[in-house]
Amino acid sequence: MKQVLMVTGGSRSGKSRYAVEAALKYENRVFLATAKAFDEEMERRIAAHQCERDSRFTTMEEPVDLAGALRLLPPGAEVALIDCLTVWLGNLMHRHGDGVDSFPEIDALFEVLEDPPADVILVTNEVGSGIVPDNAMARRFRDLAGNVNQRAAARADKVVLCVSGIPVVIKGE
Amino acid sequence: MKQVLMVTGGSRSGKSRYAVEAALKYENRVFLATAKAFDEEMERRIAAHQCERDSRFTTMEEPVDLAGALRLLPPGAEVALIDCLTVWLGNLMHRHGDGVDSFPEIDALFEVLEDPPADVILVTNEVGSGIVPDNAMARRFRDLAGNVNQRAAARADKVVLCVSGIPVVIKGE
Amino acid sequence: MKQVLMVTGGSRSGKSRYAVEAALKYENRVFLATAKAFDEEMERRIAAHQCERDSRFTTMEEPVDLAGALRLLPPGAEVALIDCLTVWLGNLMHRHGDGVDSFPEIDALFEVLEDPPADVILVTNEVGSGIVPDNAMARRFRDLAGNVNQRAAARADKVVLCVSGIPVVIKGE
Repeated sequence: MKQVLMVTGGSRSGKSRYAVEAALKYENRVFLATAKAFDEEMERRIAAHQCERDSRFTTMEEPVDLAGALRLLPPGAEVALIDCLTVWLGNLMHRHGDGVDSFPEIDALFEVLEDPPADVILVTNEVGSGIVPDNAMARRFRDLAGNVNQRAAARADKVVLCVSGIPVVIKGE
Repeated sequence: MKQVLMVTGGSRSGKSRYAVEAALKYENRVFLATAKAFDEEMERRIAAHQCERDSRFTTMEEPVDLAGALRLLPPGAEVALIDCLTVWLGNLMHRHGDGVDSFPEIDALFEVLEDPPADVILVTNEVGSGIVPDNAMARRFRDLAGNVNQRAAARADKVVLCVSGIPVVIKGE
Repeated sequence: MKQVLMVTGGSRSGKSRYAVEAALKYENRVFLATAKAFDEEMERRIAAHQCERDSRFTTMEEPVDLAGALRLLPPGAEVALIDCLTVWLGNLMHRHGDGVDSFPEIDALFEVLEDPPADVILVTNEVGSGIVPDNAMARRFRDLAGNVNQRAAARADKVVLCVSGIPVVIKGE
């Protein structure tokens, strides 16, 4: 049975680094990047992350259809690192527009995760521990991210919360 | 001696669901709802929570006087689930207006909690792990919520932090 | 070898109180305050913290050059409590202005922390678990604080995360 590891935490808490290190225990690795640069700041952030990964991964870019991407992993892939769910959810909200409350891409992902073709490492963000945001869209996003994080954690065999770069195992092992 | 359980975490972290499950271990349960709908979004959120609870609880609605509500629990009530302290504090700030720094309702609640008439489950929110809010009222609210959470956790026999739906026991048991 | 303790958590999570209690185990203590009052609210916050400490500490105020302050600890000082790194980083950003991405004061601090003249207690804030802030400066601050927290935690012999006043040890001991 394939394993699912979820790595969560606040921004700049060391999640991606921990996830990359976990993936390096495998021989044949795919990095599934969900971020799409809309502006220069985003480009810099993405480039900085790519630098950290260099040639150790086969990189696939997929901002929307994660289920499809997992089904199309290159032959021999032992692990797929998805970084990250929160950016992906932002992409989905952007794509489906206001007022839509359920996204078929989410159900499709969790369906594939029931029996994925390789081990999967999910990177995600804790976004709900600040003050309630002023604007309604940010509140919707917060709800959506919280719900998806709960589903991911329920499916995951192991969940790690990163705090200031320290990994804290909160489920499994 | 009656027990107090505190359940905290970010928004959509599974706090309410965990608290409801903890309450279902009792036979005779009261749900003490602090939320009052001021707009349509709020109404939807409250309705969604009520749906989850259905007929398994006697529901009391009390946005302000939680101490009084605890004193007036129906005979035979074994547990009172208060959901949630953070919304209640918002109600208190709204009621007492700007510039007031201490609320008698808070001291009254902690007085009753010293020897409550039933076991109590307190649901609350972590609101202080984001960027410092721009506006002064949000900062006041953040301070207030943090202080009340500290008092509640000091009183509680057990404190559970929910992260992505995973309960992490940080005090007791 | 001198010990470094890091105390992190959201705002009003009991970090400073925990840090003060940890410092009281020493005989000869220095409090290194990084906050500088820019307005009345800030003055009140600083005064409230000083009240809690009263005469149990020698207080040094240093908003910028923490490395220099550590090198100039009074003779006999056994512990220096730095409260807090997050405010200090705000001071650095203010001093160096927009567009500067690395601050020599940060490298200088970590250099001193490799072999400090006394045990050090670092208080800092988790700021990255809310919604992504709207404005670019807040995002830069969030990244900076996250990076510095990771470096501090990597150096620290023990890291404590405060949640609602409950200290949770996430590294060491």
